Formats: sequence, structure tokens, C-alpha cells
Amino acid sequence: MTHHHFQPQTYWNSFGSHPPALHIRHGDTVITSTIDASGLDQAEQMINSGTNPQTGPFYVEDAAPGDTLVVHLDALAPNRPNGWSRDVLAPHILEAFTVRGLPASNKVQWDFTADSRTARLSNPPKLLEQVAWPLRPMLGCLGVAPEDGQAISSSTSGPYGGNMDYRGTLAGVTFYFPVFVPGALLFLGDGHALQGDGEIVGTGIETSFKVQFTVGLLKNHPIRWPRGENAEYIFTLGNARPVEEALQHATTEMLAWLQADYGLDTQGASLLLGMCVEYEVANVFDPAYTMVCKLPKSILKEIRAG
Amino acid sequence: MTHHHFQPQTYWNSFGSHPPALHIRHGDTVITSTIDASGLDQAEQMINSGTNPQTGPFYVEDAAPGDTLVVHLDALAPNRPNGWSRDVLAPHILEAFTVRGLPASNKVQWDFTADSRTARLSNPPKLLEQVAWPLRPMLGCLGVAPEDGQAISSSTSGPYGGNMDYRGTLAGVTFYFPVFVPGALLFLGDGHALQGDGEIVGTGIETSFKVQFTVGLLKNHPIRWPRGENAEYIFTLGNARPVEEALQHATTEMLAWLQADYGLDTQGASLLLGMCVEYEVANVFDPAYTMVCKLPKSILKEIRAG
Amino acid sequence: MTHHHFQPQTYWNSFGSHPPALHIRHGDTVITSTIDASGLDQAEQMINSGTNPQTGPFYVEDAAPGDTLVVHLDALAPNRPNGWSRDVLAPHILEAFTVRGLPASNKVQWDFTADSRTARLSNPPKLLEQVAWPLRPMLGCLGVAPEDGQAISSSTSGPYGGNMDYRGTLAGVTFYFPVFVPGALLFLGDGHALQGDGEIVGTGIETSFKVQFTVGLLKNHPIRWPRGENAEYIFTLGNARPVEEALQHATTEMLAWLQADYGLDTQGASLLLGMCVEYEVANVFDPAYTMVCKLPKSILKEIRAG
Amino acid sequence: MTHHHFQPQTYWNSFGSHPPALHIRHGDTVITSTIDASGLDQAEQMINSGTNPQTGPFYVEDAAPGDTLVVHLDALAPNRPNGWSRDVLAPHILEAFTVRGLPASNKVQWDFTADSRTARLSNPPKLLEQVAWPLRPMLGCLGVAPEDGQAISSSTSGPYGGNMDYRGTLAGVTFYFPVFVPGALLFLGDGHALQGDGEIVGTGIETSFKVQFTVGLLKNHPIRWPRGENAEYIFTLGNARPVEEALQHATTEMLAWLQADYGLDTQGASLLLGMCVEYEVANVFDPAYTMVCKLPKSILKEIRAG
Repeated sequence: MTHHHFQPQTYWNSFGSHPPALHIRHGDTVITSTIDASGLDQAEQMINSGTNPQTGPFYVEDAAPGDTLVVHLDALAPNRPNGWSRDVLAPHILEAFTVRGLPASNKVQWDFTADSRTARLSNPPKLLEQVAWPLRPMLGCLGVAPEDGQAISSSTSGPYGGNMDYRGTLAGVTFYFPVFVPGALLFLGDGHALQGDGEIVGTGIETSFKVQFTVGLLKNHPIRWPRGENAEYIFTLGNARPVEEALQHATTEMLAWLQADYGLDTQGASLLLGMCVEYEVANVFDPAYTMVCKLPKSILKEIRAG
Repeated sequence: MTHHHFQPQTYWNSFGSHPPALHIRHGDTVITSTIDASGLDQAEQMINSGTNPQTGPFYVEDAAPGDTLVVHLDALAPNRPNGWSRDVLAPHILEAFTVRGLPASNKVQWDFTADSRTARLSNPPKLLEQVAWPLRPMLGCLGVAPEDGQAISSSTSGPYGGNMDYRGTLAGVTFYFPVFVPGALLFLGDGHALQGDGEIVGTGIETSFKVQFTVGLLKNHPIRWPRGENAEYIFTLGNARPVEEALQHATTEMLAWLQADYGLDTQGASLLLGMCVEYEVANVFDPAYTMVCKLPKSILKEIRAG
Repeated sequence: MTHHHFQPQTYWNSFGSHPPALHIRHGDTVITSTIDASGLDQAEQMINSGTNPQTGPFYVEDAAPGDTLVVHLDALAPNRPNGWSRDVLAPHILEAFTVRGLPASNKVQWDFTADSRTARLSNPPKLLEQVAWPLRPMLGCLGVAPEDGQAISSSTSGPYGGNMDYRGTLAGVTFYFPVFVPGALLFLGDGHALQGDGEIVGTGIETSFKVQFTVGLLKNHPIRWPRGENAEYIFTLGNARPVEEALQHATTEMLAWLQADYGLDTQGASLLLGMCVEYEVANVFDPAYTMVCKLPKSILKEIRAG
Repeated sequence: MTHHHFQPQTYWNSFGSHPPALHIRHGDTVITSTIDASGLDQAEQMINSGTNPQTGPFYVEDAAPGDTLVVHLDALAPNRPNGWSRDVLAPHILEAFTVRGLPASNKVQWDFTADSRTARLSNPPKLLEQVAWPLRPMLGCLGVAPEDGQAISSSTSGPYGGNMDYRGTLAGVTFYFPVFVPGALLFLGDGHALQGDGEIVGTGIETSFKVQFTVGLLKNHPIRWPRGENAEYIFTLGNARPVEEALQHATTEMLAWLQADYGLDTQGASLLLGMCVEYEVANVFDPAYTMVCKLPKSILKEIRAG
């Protein structure tokens, strides 16, 4: 149950079997930092030129293919008083005929209050001058090394997690990832101080973060797609294009979860999902889209009681 | 501001320019009923053999193309003590390779408590024996006659609304529809006592309803897709396949709304949506899917203050 | 085996159960005409203001739901010496980031040679001044009345055919349509003197046509989607969004055809399709896209020999 | 203009910046071999256990990011007298409701005639006993190393080419690839003796190949997606899901080609594509689908004359 204070020296622009940055164990906690999606660190120095530079990888001792890596996000917060975002909707989010009239998208700057509770636009467009935007710090990227010796750009995602840009990746949430390589090789990065569903301007409020997380291992516990839970829900994440496929992955993983860990048969799991499932659109911007399939713990409690 | 008590004599299986069932006016309230998706009425008599039989159409005096029809749902509740649903996930919701092993989908029966607050399965699968399912009555179908003399099956949806199967179609919610034909011709039906996001078993808990609604007219107020609002959100609905297109319609309509009624420019509306939008998956089962684009009123209040 | 010379008086902008324009029988031939997609007739007079005005409907005696309507296209040709098209790629056909720079799409005029073999642009852009475009007259719209009393805009398509915009809808080709209503109610229109795959500028070279066709009936021969054959191929057409669904419909219909009429089992049909299928992209512009699944008659002959 | 006879010692299961197997130069010809998708070589020995093992990479001297690599396929043929395929349509190719009834897919064996002109099934299903299947040898995989230090599984494809499974990848065809890394790093593999459009049973007739190819370089000639030409067409390939996006990539690349190399403006290129484009469905099975956008050289000749 060691606490590691880890200062990254190298950042990676892909999820792959890169040399471990730190070896950790089941139960260990890591306090570290991430730089922003464009490579700017806490001091606003550009220290990496690629996309979504990742902190890590963290090698988890004893993690082996077929295990599940548990990652509990203990704390997430910006470690500088500002961030940036894009400012115009991505053209593929709108009906094609409207796109010709869209203005070009630019970077805009945001300033955070000292407590990092809210932000203001440095140069707000009309009517947004007085808005105090409530922050909701989340990690855009979280995942492990993919299978088959692949190294996949940190702009996209897959069964290994990656750039899922899910606004529910908040402090207090626990994630579960399939382990594909020895040590699992955990990466994290791309902090967003705030982001709507879908990441439809192409960014959240991008900034550098301080992060604390704690890992665990479920040995011989194969899963196929990332899972998670928070106070109210269990959830699964599917990463693919189009949305339908991301949704298929997430729903299939949830069905498997309900069958394997909750003992439901297909009919029971179907009725539960049919009447109580909730979906979230994590991102519809990255090369792979991310859909989240959620089931309220309130209804699950009734079942287990039964 | 007349209150009409309307007992339907005829039900329609398409949204089209059918003979008006009742003429009403801006401000009028209608108390009526709907039969279930399979044609069963309050007495569980089969009185229509087609899909999603609709109550209506209600001809709203003075409604003309280019207007917006306002429909406030005052009250919705089952008018019989039971309903039915399908019991296995639709195959297209799951990864294709899993489908071969799916059991066949059957109808199952649900019994409601006297107060219609919860339901129980008549013949529950294992582990669901004790579940009291909290009901959340909603209308699967709500809409007006489409343009160009079309009559379109009540199994699908479009700019005119229709079978959107949105679990947010609850009592207390206000909807806005584009008017395509004189009188608008409002239809409603397909009550669900409960339904998860997506309608992924292909039904909610299908039952007959008593319904009270109040209409209004916004003259010379053209909109392109259905809109709505509840206590916490304004929202727009896009109906199409695939999900991406439904999402494009809903987001484009929201952008238009923010520009026309809230005075935002494209940059301002984009920032607001980029950081605060929420999406809901209404249905991914019907011939057209339905996505809902929502913006919290809390953030909108800050803007108007500005 | 009557030959009918039919001069349309009324045109329809939807495929629906409209009053029959002419009653015909199995084996009958009809010589008639169609006006162009914008309502211009042979004399370039605008005689209908809606989209894709249809000639018909032709009521085929004895046709009943569960039958197949056979339509052989005997002859197709422009009946005026010119046509028009759009001139810029539809934005959804291109990567979203390129669309902002697209010029607006305009109508351009085309002039046909006296023999209707080739066309020239009236006002060609640079480098296209000398191009003699070889014509290939085809019908954009062909189909029957849909089920359930629907009337569906002639801008789209479905199991009943409709605006499929398939460049293979040529003279000499035989089509098969499911019959949904008594008399089948055949419609045709939207002649294109030339069109590429996909109809990706949103039109072909739109013009009015003279058309000769011969009908037949296959009694008690249910099919689910349009089929056809020409000298080299049998083919099926699927109409839906997205492309994947159109392709699923067409492939499923072809599988059914190979099983029912050629006696193949699933494995045999799969091997045949897996090694020899060809697909065509009929349109990716209309509300429903159209994919064509083709199998060469050359390989089918080997099978039947076996 | 050296001729290299290259016997691979190592095979790669990803397209990435792996150590060069051979250094070659503009104008060089390579005579080599590929093993089949399952790792079986000419002697039917399993010599690689991963998916689609690749021969290469070939390091092309002087190739640098921003160049185009030219690959002319001089000769392709099976180097053993048999192959294998799957035998049942992939479930996602069919309407979802039909999938439950599909039999399981198995491997089946094919025997080639001595001249490799035709094949027969070793154990044919009924009615296919006498079929002599005409072979059409093609490469399923062809491409270069991707950008950003990625190593991407040879089961999928992207701007760098990869597992495109395009049945037009035949002897006599020339391909053009963007160069992302020094030396380009050309890979090839996954020979199919025969395959229909879409690879809809999940394989072609998989076998090992002898291959001869000749490379060239277009210096400072950036392209974004693979291109090619054969006797009748120029073509571009887009790799993505869903089909619509693959089609967007291919069409956008063709538009760029027509503008940059043929001097057409957007209107001229749009008219040419709108009236004359043809699409091919290369694969709808792999993680990324591949669409091919083709333009006949016959119409291009008329333009250049103009």
C-alpha cells in the first residue's frame, strides 16, 4: 500500500508497450501530474509536441493478460489557473448543409478561480461575459497497453481504453480495464476542467492536472471492454465508430457483467436493461466514438436482495 | 380555454392528413385516452389491429405551416392495472457475434400497484422475483401530420415527431412541433409505464393511458425539428438513422434555437454546447432513431443575466 | 397482351394508394412519359411543383399482397433535347473539414445530341469544354404503393422501391417488386440521362422521358425487397440509412432468393456470395440510401448445371 | 533498377516502424513471397501465429514524409495448390433478425488446378459440386508504416493502407501510398486466390503467394489516402467505419487528385464525379471498412484533350 509521488520525465503519444515509468503493486497509490492535450505543463511550458501526451506507463506487478486492472481516481484537479478550448462546433456534429456557413474554429483561453471551482472566458463572446462556468475536472485519456504489440495514437481509443473523453471520468470513480500485456501498463492524460457530452467542439477546457489514483488487480478476471462504477451507477464503455457500434460494445459488455457477476440470465438482464438502462454520449469527436451504458445501483440492489 | 373530454372512436396507424377527430384552440385542454401499442384498450379489448394506434388528430384552429404547435403534457397515467413488454435485447443492440446465442424474445406481463407507482413481473426470471419496478409513465408517440400529403407509419418518426419513444415524454413537459398542414393535426399514443433509454428490448411496459394536455400556438414561428422543455432543461429531438444523423438534427436545431431566441452568435452557442450539452438516447430501435440534445436552464440563466 | 398508350394527366409526389391512372394486366405493355424531377415536361413547361412527380399509378389486375410485380423496362429515352443537374458535390460526401470551402451548388444545363447519345454542358467549366458525355438513360424512381395505407414522399425509398436513383435502372432490365396493396399501384418517374454511382451531386442529368414497360405477375410469390436482373446479373436492392443497413437488406434478400429459387443452403449461398458478390452504390444522397447486391449469371449457370 | 529475390525470415502482425527487412531503391523490383492469413506458408507449415503476417518491411531509400510511394504489382499467384476460406456470411452483413438462425461458420478447403486458373471446393455443399471457381489472385494487405510511431494490427487499415481486402489489388495495378516515415516501410501479405466484394464471409480463398513488385518514388508529392490505377480507371481508397466515412475519405482524395493533377476546379471535378464516378465496396468486414472511388480513364482522356 505504498504511496508513490511520481514526477514524469517522458510522455507518450501512443498507448503501447513502452518502457515502464514506475513499477507499482495492487493497493498502491500514485500522486502524479499530467500535461495538457497540446503538451503544456503546469508552468505553461510546451514539453511535448504530439497529441494527448500521456503520463506513464505504470507497470502493475503481477498483472497478466486475462486479469482486470482496477483504477480508482482518488483526486483530480487542474494544477494551473487556466486552460484553453476550441470555440466552434465540429462540422460533422451539424447537418451538412449548415457547415458552409460555420466560422473557423479558434483556440480561446479560460481563467480559473483560485479554488478551481469556476472558470471565465478571457475574451467572451456577447452575452457570455458574466457566466461563471462551474468546473468538473475529468481525464480525457485513461487506459492500458493494447494487445498484439500495437502502439496506438493517444488521439483514439479501443478495448484498452485510451482517449475516451468521457465527462464521467471524475474523482471518486473506479475504472476496470482488461489487461493485455504483462504489467498492464497504465497511461493517463488529457485533463479537462470542463467538457459537455460528446466533446463536440473538439476539446474540453484543456489544462494540466495533478492526479492521485490507486490501483488494484482482479486476477483471472477477463473482461472485454472498460467498465466502471460511481456512487449511483455501474457502467461500461464501448469505443468505436459509428455510435451504434460503440453502443453495441458497451451493451454487450454490460450484459456479460450482469450475467457473470450478478447471476442474471439473458431474459433477466434484458428486462433490467430494457426498462432501466441509461446511455451517455462520451465523445463523438475522436477517431473512435465512446458510448457509456449505465445501470442504476438502486435497481441492482433490489435484485441482489431477491 | 375550453376543457374537452374526448373519447376516441377511431385510431390511426399513421401520422397523416386524416379527418380531424376534434377541433380545439390555443389554450384549450384535452382529457382523453390512448390504447396500447398492440391495440388493447383500458378493458384489454383489442380495438385496433395495427401498430401504435394513435388518438387524434386534433385540429388546432388557426395553426398554419410556419407556426409552432405547443403541447404541454398536463397528466399521464396508465388507465389499467397491467401492461406488457418484450423480454430479450434486440439483436442489433449487441455485438453481432453474440446474436446467434440469444434466446427468442417473448411477451411478458407486468402488474401495477393500485397507485400505479410500481410494477411487478407476472412471471419473473430468477433473481427478479422481488423487484418493485418504479413506474415513470411516458408517451412513445407524439407529433403532427407531416408535409407533402404524406401518411407515415406510426412505427417511425421524423421532423413532425411521431414514434420517438423518448422516456422524457413525461407529465409536466412541454413540447414544440413544427406545423406542416392547416390545423397541425396532433396525434398521440403508445403509452409506456416504464422504459429505459433506447427502448432496447423493442418496447417499454406497454399499456393504455389517460392523458391530459393543453395546446398553444406560436404564430409565424418556424422550427425544423421537435423541441421541448422541462424544469431543468431545454431540449431538441432529432429523428433519423443512424444515431449520428439524429444527433446532427437535434444539435443543429439547438444551435438555431440558441441563436434565434437567446441571441447568441455561433461562437457563443458553440462554447455553451461544447462545455454543457447533454445528450439522451431516446430510441435506437425504431426505423428512425431519436437523439435528444439538452442544455441546462441553470447555465442559460447566467447567460440571460449577462 | 394489350399495348397501352398512356398520357398522364396527374402526377404524384408520393408513393401511396392514390386513385389508379390506368388499369392493366399481366403481359400488358405501356408506352407513356415522365416529367423531370422539378416538374418540367417535354416542352419544358412546369406542370407539377413538387419533388420527383410520378407517372401512375398503374393498377395491375389481380395483383394482391404476397404477389411479386414484374416490370420489364422495354425502352427509356429523353423526350426533349436537354436536361439539368447540380454542379457541386453534396457536402456529406466529403470529409467534414473540407466542406467549409465548398462553393455553392447551382443548376447547370446540358444539351443532348439529336440521337440522345451524348450531352454537352451549356456553360462548361474549364477543361470540360470539349467533353462529349455519353448518355445512359435510367429511371431514378420506380416502385409500388407501400403497406399500411402509407403515402411516402417520392424523394425517398423503401421496400416498395421509390426514389432509388440506381444507374442500373436501364432499358432491358427487369425489376421485381413486392405487392403490398391490391393492384400493386406502379409508379415511375425522375428520368436521368446520365448519373454516376451515388448521385453525389444530388442529381443526375434530369430530364423528361418517354418510357415503355411491360408488366407481369408472380402470384403468391412474396419477396421483401426489390429485385432485378439484366443480361449479366441477378440483383437485389436495399433502401435505408446508413449504407450498412441498405447493404444488409440487399444481401439478406439475395440470400433468400438463392435459397428459395436456386435451392442452395446457407453454406452454399454464403460461399457463392463470399467469393463472387458485387455491390453497387446506387445512391448515397436521398433520405434512404440504396445499395445493390449482384451475382453474376455466369457463376449461377455453373450451379444449376450442378 | 535492381531485381531482388527476397526470402522473408520474419513476418510482422502490425504495420509499424519495424526493422527493415531489405533496402531497395526507386525503380527496383522485388520477387518475394507471402504466407497466408493464418500463417501457413507454401509448404502448409504454420510459421507465424498472428493475424495476417506481413512480408517486409521494405525500406525505400530516400523516401521521406511528404513523398508518395509507388508500388506496381507485376505478378501475383498462389505458390501452393490449395487454400481455405470461411463458409457462412458474417452476421453483421445480414438483417439482425436473421442472424439467430445462421449456422456456425467453419473453415473449408479449396483445391486449385495446376495452372491456378480455377478452384474447387474439397467438400462442396449441395449444388456446388461441379462449380469451377475462376481465380483472381489479389493481395488483402498492402501498405506502409503509419505516422506517429504507431504499430497498428494487420487486421485493420488506415491512411497508410493495410488490410484493405480490395479485390482490385491485382497484378498489373499500380498503387500510391503516402509516406509517413523515412524509408516508407512497405509491407504486403494476406493473398486471396478469390474474393467477392466486401469479404462478406470474412475471408477470401486464403493462400500463400509468390509476388513480384516494383517501387518508385514521387518526391515532395503529399497525398492523404492510398491511390491507384489500372488500365481502365484511376481510383482512391478510403479506410474507416462506417461505410459513409470510408466513402468520404476516398471521394475527398479523388477530388484533391482531380484538382491537383488534372487542373479541374471544384465545379468541374464535381460534375465529372457526379456523372461518371463508380464506387467499389472493397471490404465491410475488417475493423476499418474500405471503399474505392473510381473514375474511368476514358472520360479523363476527353478532359485532357480539352
